[in-house]
Amino acid sequence: MTAKGKLWGIGLGPGDPDLITLKALKILQAVDVVAYPAPLEGESFARSIAAPHLAGKQVEYPIRIPMVADRGPAQDVYDVAAKDLGTHLIAGRTVAVLCEGDPFFYGSFMYLFQRLIDDFDVEVVPGVSSVMACAAEAGMPLGERTDVITILPASLSEIDLENKLRDTDTAVIMKVGRHLSKVRTIVERLGLIAEACYVERATLPEQRIIPLAEISDDAAPYFSMILVQSNGGRS
Amino acid sequence: MTAKGKLWGIGLGPGDPDLITLKALKILQAVDVVAYPAPLEGESFARSIAAPHLAGKQVEYPIRIPMVADRGPAQDVYDVAAKDLGTHLIAGRTVAVLCEGDPFFYGSFMYLFQRLIDDFDVEVVPGVSSVMACAAEAGMPLGERTDVITILPASLSEIDLENKLRDTDTAVIMKVGRHLSKVRTIVERLGLIAEACYVERATLPEQRIIPLAEISDDAAPYFSMILVQSNGGRS
Repeated sequence: MTAKGKLWGIGLGPGDPDLITLKALKILQAVDVVAYPAPLEGESFARSIAAPHLAGKQVEYPIRIPMVADRGPAQDVYDVAAKDLGTHLIAGRTVAVLCEGDPFFYGSFMYLFQRLIDDFDVEVVPGVSSVMACAAEAGMPLGERTDVITILPASLSEIDLENKLRDTDTAVIMKVGRHLSKVRTIVERLGLIAEACYVERATLPEQRIIPLAEISDDAAPYFSMILVQSNGGRS
Repeated sequence: MTAKGKLWGIGLGPGDPDLITLKALKILQAVDVVAYPAPLEGESFARSIAAPHLAGKQVEYPIRIPMVADRGPAQDVYDVAAKDLGTHLIAGRTVAVLCEGDPFFYGSFMYLFQRLIDDFDVEVVPGVSSVMACAAEAGMPLGERTDVITILPASLSEIDLENKLRDTDTAVIMKVGRHLSKVRTIVERLGLIAEACYVERATLPEQRIIPLAEISDDAAPYFSMILVQSNGGRS
């Protein structure tokens, strides 16, 4: 520990501002600096979830991350952000990094965590994950007893996705986006289309929940998910 | 819809009462009846998480579930509970069923949901899962980019556990309990012992976080978990 400040990575939940935890809310409202990931231009989804809870008197620090396949540019951005947030911490300030969903579940917070944990006091506050939010909204239990649940990024290869889908009780296919038609093809081939549900922007006013069989789009938003009960539903 | 009442299954999070969501808190404090799973004798863990938030003026309904391997006795209890809660709903009362963690993630709430969803207005409020809480407390990110995350009940057979552990980037082994030495043996055999962390009662005052390599116990509490970064940790 080399500094008086403290950094929190706080999970804000899937989108509904009321799905923030009391713990995250208290930290959010008490810190000196509020940092959040944002696209190069336009609004930060994480900040939009937190917005109703912000009093507007805090220093804000958007971390503008280029959305490109190459990892290099984003890693450069995290280098700069870690340095800037480190400067606040050394000066004794408290900092919250806002995270959609949960900070350690496919979140970009881990890249800041890795850069800052050796030198600073860093705490992770878990949040409601989109996985649990989608299951709740779709009315589809994720698992019971000895069920195996597998979380699969939709960007996996067709063969990988198919093998993993065969080998689990419940599959949660994340970040569907442009992989929608690939995923639908695989789920159909496995005879699981009747057990699959598509959920877009869970818990937000524009949420869509549709049986996968009824989806004819070729692409979906990044924040979409497909739940598949590979064992044919629960007893 | 045949009744004026409404039933919510509300996720309370992993144990720290501050990890309840604002949404769950508002429902908890507004409903007429608060129901919760409990052992045959003694305290309900779900109720203990909610306790600091209860004003003590609500009807309480413990659902006392026998902890036996045979499913029959518990299913009989859910039949009776669904009937009793249905009576409240028909009378126009609002009911919250308290759930540790998330209601649809290995939670007993699904058994009430299945029995009541066809006749009543039922809403599931997702909660912070112990998976995300353990990762946060252990400082171990669950996954990034194309990582596959597999949730494995520790009660799976040795061969199933070993095969699934080989075939994932991160494994979350749930409900370790009396399966601790079996799990440790498998993780050691796969050469993953240095990447495995044991977490007991995450976010509670009595929380324990220990590298699996340093655990010599043969059994663990039911509410314990082992995280394994099968790909050897993140880049």
